Amino acid sequence: MTEDDDGRRGASFSPAEHAELALLLEVAGTPKPGNVDRRRDFPDLRFEHFLAGAVGARRGLDRAAAGAPVGEAFERAVAGMAARQGGGNTQFGCLLLLVPLVSAAAGGDLTPGGAAAVAESTTVEDAAGFYRAFEHANVAVGDPPAGAGDLDVRRGGEAIPALRERELTLYDVMEMSADRDGNAREWTGEFRRTFGAAEGILADDGPVLDRAARTFLDLLAEEPDSLVAVQHGEAVAADVSRRAAAVRGDPEAVAALADELVADGRNPGTTADITAAALFVALERGVAV
Amino acid sequence: MTEDDDGRRGASFSPAEHAELALLLEVAGTPKPGNVDRRRDFPDLRFEHFLAGAVGARRGLDRAAAGAPVGEAFERAVAGMAARQGGGNTQFGCLLLLVPLVSAAAGGDLTPGGAAAVAESTTVEDAAGFYRAFEHANVAVGDPPAGAGDLDVRRGGEAIPALRERELTLYDVMEMSADRDGNAREWTGEFRRTFGAAEGILADDGPVLDRAARTFLDLLAEEPDSLVAVQHGEAVAADVSRRAAAVRGDPEAVAALADELVADGRNPGTTADITAAALFVALERGVAV
Repeated sequence: MTEDDDGRRGASFSPAEHAELALLLEVAGTPKPGNVDRRRDFPDLRFEHFLAGAVGARRGLDRAAAGAPVGEAFERAVAGMAARQGGGNTQFGCLLLLVPLVSAAAGGDLTPGGAAAVAESTTVEDAAGFYRAFEHANVAVGDPPAGAGDLDVRRGGEAIPALRERELTLYDVMEMSADRDGNAREWTGEFRRTFGAAEGILADDGPVLDRAARTFLDLLAEEPDSLVAVQHGEAVAADVSRRAAAVRGDPEAVAALADELVADGRNPGTTADITAAALFVALERGVAV
Repeated sequence: MTEDDDGRRGASFSPAEHAELALLLEVAGTPKPGNVDRRRDFPDLRFEHFLAGAVGARRGLDRAAAGAPVGEAFERAVAGMAARQGGGNTQFGCLLLLVPLVSAAAGGDLTPGGAAAVAESTTVEDAAGFYRAFEHANVAVGDPPAGAGDLDVRRGGEAIPALRERELTLYDVMEMSADRDGNAREWTGEFRRTFGAAEGILADDGPVLDRAARTFLDLLAEEPDSLVAVQHGEAVAADVSRRAAAVRGDPEAVAALADELVADGRNPGTTADITAAALFVALERGVAV
């Protein structure tokens, strides 16, 4: 294969292009109970907010593909995500997973080990970029662990001196919340669910948007969503997962669950994040669009 | 405003970002009778093909924004559009309008006069890029004018010697088909309908996807679609426009027309192209997303 002057091979997509496309396929997949999708808007968070978020995030994804540090690329992606739409936080969690995966892909090792190596090699500066990113979007988060109030992500860049003093890398920060945040668990656990779901997408049949929707439901059934847990408690999150498991394979029941979750304000956002990350891996591995 | 190292101003979008977003908003707008949209797929041309087409086109849009010649940027955009999806020609016509508009915006003069200046300054090399672009996508076109068989766009790059011999610029090529192609008419007519529709989008109310759908219907009602004319004849194209005019403002009638046009294989693609171009101008002028 020849590379052109952008370093892209022939007709194929770069990792940054695949990551942006993964964001778009994730939000388009329908039905994704409890989330905005191709057929569903929320009153203040609409489909077009995600389209603009994906386009704007590309700046940071391009940086990650070019070898920029993860924290810098992530902050840039989140700033772009928020730059041109009024919906607020559309894809913060997706980008937290996609940026290290794009780095791993650009380095030629998009594997659980390669992604773990990127995560483990992050620095205090990467952690600072992560904290700064919170200033660009209103992200739903839980309270920090006891004794870690100076590291509350809601402090944004103001928490950076505490990061530096304790010499905490972005990986360290993720480890601190891995017990209650599904995305942090991907970071510290070789992106286990992401790579597993990607295999499922590749093994599945039919249009990629249908595969995306099935993957979302499988992931939701498999493990309680940590955003639902933060917003409504662990019992509710577990109940949502049980209900997702019960409706799989029954389109009418899935549609009814989608209506119920929206009516009750249950938004399984972490599950959508992992779906987007899995779509990225599947695209890099050649899934047809 | 400060510019960062990519030349982007603060938090705003670059012309290439706005152009990619315009492609996405165009295809998402619903209902757009006769076209793929957020709520409608065709059997072999699905929504996700347009998502991948928009992401891939960005390569060429970035080139246009960086000052590359129109023909080179256009060929690059079309090649990227086709690189990662199986639907075929998704946005060839949109890109034919967007590339010179992005060039005009990057040059600081996104006005009818500024766009006309870009079109009029095209060269024989730009025409060669346009012809090469046909090799990347299967584009529905009419027969060439009598005596111009050696310039048939379906010959792709093989027609380039004839272009060079006759010293035809891309503007000249557009002039040759302006009488039967709505996009060529934009090129040679100061993008009149594009800028007019952009004003309509800016003056309209509500979510931008609703504005996109209304704009499509207004444009279709205003003038017969030239893709429908190429594929089904001018009488059919005129009939489609009359029916579009009759249903405006009546959501149920619009939905019924959408079903009828799809059933009859009427695809007003040129009208969608101008809608995308108008969305780009409206985005550059600050329409809220």
